[in-house]
Amino acid sequence: MKKIIDPPKIDWPGLVLRPQNAPNEIAAIIDEIFAAVQHDGDKAVIRYNQLYDQNDAAIHKIDSATIAQAVDQLSDNLKAAIRMAATNIERFHAAQREVVQKVATTKGVICWRESRAIEHIGLYIPGGTAPLFSTVLMLGIPAKLAGCKEIVLCTPADKNGCIHPAILYAASLSGISNILGIGGAQAIAAMAMGTKSINKVDKIFGPGNQYVTAAKQKAQSIGVAIDMPAGPSELLIIADKTCNPQFVAADLLSQAEHGSDSQVILLSDNETTINNCLYELEIQLTTLPRKDIAQAALSNSSAIVLNSVASCIAFSNLYAPEHLILAMEHAAEQTPNITNAGSVFLGNFSCESAGDYASGTNHTLPTNGFARSYSGVSLDSFLKKITFQELSEEGIRNIGLGIELMAEAEQLLGHKNAVSLRLNSL
Amino acid sequence: MKKIIDPPKIDWPGLVLRPQNAPNEIAAIIDEIFAAVQHDGDKAVIRYNQLYDQNDAAIHKIDSATIAQAVDQLSDNLKAAIRMAATNIERFHAAQREVVQKVATTKGVICWRESRAIEHIGLYIPGGTAPLFSTVLMLGIPAKLAGCKEIVLCTPADKNGCIHPAILYAASLSGISNILGIGGAQAIAAMAMGTKSINKVDKIFGPGNQYVTAAKQKAQSIGVAIDMPAGPSELLIIADKTCNPQFVAADLLSQAEHGSDSQVILLSDNETTINNCLYELEIQLTTLPRKDIAQAALSNSSAIVLNSVASCIAFSNLYAPEHLILAMEHAAEQTPNITNAGSVFLGNFSCESAGDYASGTNHTLPTNGFARSYSGVSLDSFLKKITFQELSEEGIRNIGLGIELMAEAEQLLGHKNAVSLRLNSL
Repeated sequence: MKKIIDPPKIDWPGLVLRPQNAPNEIAAIIDEIFAAVQHDGDKAVIRYNQLYDQNDAAIHKIDSATIAQAVDQLSDNLKAAIRMAATNIERFHAAQREVVQKVATTKGVICWRESRAIEHIGLYIPGGTAPLFSTVLMLGIPAKLAGCKEIVLCTPADKNGCIHPAILYAASLSGISNILGIGGAQAIAAMAMGTKSINKVDKIFGPGNQYVTAAKQKAQSIGVAIDMPAGPSELLIIADKTCNPQFVAADLLSQAEHGSDSQVILLSDNETTINNCLYELEIQLTTLPRKDIAQAALSNSSAIVLNSVASCIAFSNLYAPEHLILAMEHAAEQTPNITNAGSVFLGNFSCESAGDYASGTNHTLPTNGFARSYSGVSLDSFLKKITFQELSEEGIRNIGLGIELMAEAEQLLGHKNAVSLRLNSL
Repeated sequence: MKKIIDPPKIDWPGLVLRPQNAPNEIAAIIDEIFAAVQHDGDKAVIRYNQLYDQNDAAIHKIDSATIAQAVDQLSDNLKAAIRMAATNIERFHAAQREVVQKVATTKGVICWRESRAIEHIGLYIPGGTAPLFSTVLMLGIPAKLAGCKEIVLCTPADKNGCIHPAILYAASLSGISNILGIGGAQAIAAMAMGTKSINKVDKIFGPGNQYVTAAKQKAQSIGVAIDMPAGPSELLIIADKTCNPQFVAADLLSQAEHGSDSQVILLSDNETTINNCLYELEIQLTTLPRKDIAQAALSNSSAIVLNSVASCIAFSNLYAPEHLILAMEHAAEQTPNITNAGSVFLGNFSCESAGDYASGTNHTLPTNGFARSYSGVSLDSFLKKITFQELSEEGIRNIGLGIELMAEAEQLLGHKNAVSLRLNSL
């Protein structure tokens, strides 16, 4: 981790840059996969499952007996933990439901919005070393609350066609019954375009490697909505002298272990605090199982001493971190000053792990500076809001003349005529 | 307009398809414009302004004297109409403000969301035959309500470097002072990447031709958010025998005059109603100034008799129209059945023109079936929602063990350790 002391403001834009991935050649591969799935449907999906995941299974929904059997394999403690997380996620997202509010913008002109579920959604859960059942909850529970009619979950199966039991358990808690052992870009292509076994979805959610990310971009370019653009995960911590350096170091490592392309930034107005945290970091790093990954991430990372807490906040807003921990006195008083962040953790006991798993907030958050313009996943991500309006005779009388004038000024006389005919009829 | 009687359900998917634009070669032109603007900045922008709009002016903000002078040219009646529309739009969008609601998901675990404005936004307003000042209001007023720090408005200037006074007036009502006479893809490129005269923005809003649309897609691919994907405008009307065929015909034409690629669909459970509306349509068409445009749009359009109102609603939900008019008895009772639409107009006096200009709802809406997954522009389009959480010692005690178990099951021991250290400290 690079230590930087009081960099001048002119250097800040360089310091908030994310590590750039080397430009890659995967767009051509993704185009090929989409073309193959469009042309050969399920057959192409099976071919890519074989190629990339050594999974020969036919495309089929995991049946309920398999799910029940898998769930039996999980410890009761883990199941209770997953249920606890599910309950908190449900509580937080259920509170996001919007009450319909009718607004009389003018007498006789009543306007309002109503929410409707996006009917067909697709969730992608990566395979690989760790079974990300927490992400199943983070996407599945708000989808269920929204009332999405059809939720497809694709995740790579292992060589035997099996899916990790914790993923199946989290899916069943979220009411998802349509689970398919398909991974990678072929899963995204199948959900984006539909095949015989998989219905086309309206929106695709979920994390993935660079192939999945590129496939989601491709899906977006052909008209399928996606949750948000993706990038490596990141954490910024602002720590003052009241922080607990052990906690800060552990939080930095919890982020750094995500992937070698992760980035962590530590800011403080106090150099001793930075030194103490970095000292603890070195100690804790030695015992971390994913040490190599964390070390690679730390090589992209910096600890920066700035001249005040206000400067730390300003730097953080410029960086727009996915996760922001305020490990400082009176952290809550700083919240009005936070303008760009995905999710913010206040005080010494609010660790990122809490939000990653169980506090109830969503862990699908904007990375790579996208927190400047995007929100994390919420109930709204699974809804559309439709506007409604009802004008009475009085309503059109009140605003009709104004519409006629504006339509005429925009040279849209058909628009004007639709109003004139109504006014003349009164 | 093609008349179709009771098509079988198997034909519906074909009937809800939008007219397809021929594949075009503009991606290469857009790439070239972005590369030029990245390399040459303002100079490239001026070059493309000259090429496409015969506008030789240097890049400069329209000054307040020019705005004041332009405003003087507008009639008092038109200014009053624009102010009336602005007031209604402000009322409807101000009611969308969200109250912060703290949720204790578990004792000691407090989670909430707060909204923050997207700081730098860019609005694009097309030039061409009609000055779309109504779109300035639809984007500028919610942006002002959201509290966006910097709002840039680009719109093509004429050969003399001038912008239509109604656009300047609507912009000044919305509090937009940063107005530039730049059009087309070069405007999008300049806002997406920034130049010496134009700051890079976080999100770009607004309609445009296929070049602007492709440029917005390009902007999105390099990390700048956009309002929504674009497509030709469209209207679906469900009319029963209580409708006023004159009004229905006028509404169909008000949509058809938008552009030759517009589409209108008329549904009814009653063939006589369809015949009466089509008869009125022919009469009104003859006097429409934009008759040729409307006629081209009508050639892509259909009037369909279905066997019941319920079938009409089901067809409409499959089509997912941008605008939906329910010209029928008890229209309000049908609203719960509407699942996919951008904006819905209830009853005989709620014409699309009302929503296009002055009722207060937003007219920037999802087209091309995107209403299945996207909402129209709202206050939220200019905001991000940041999640916050604060755990007390009791909070981490209540959920800590569960987090440890889940983190271990996901093989993320750094995540577990961040909790264990805190639990051990208590």
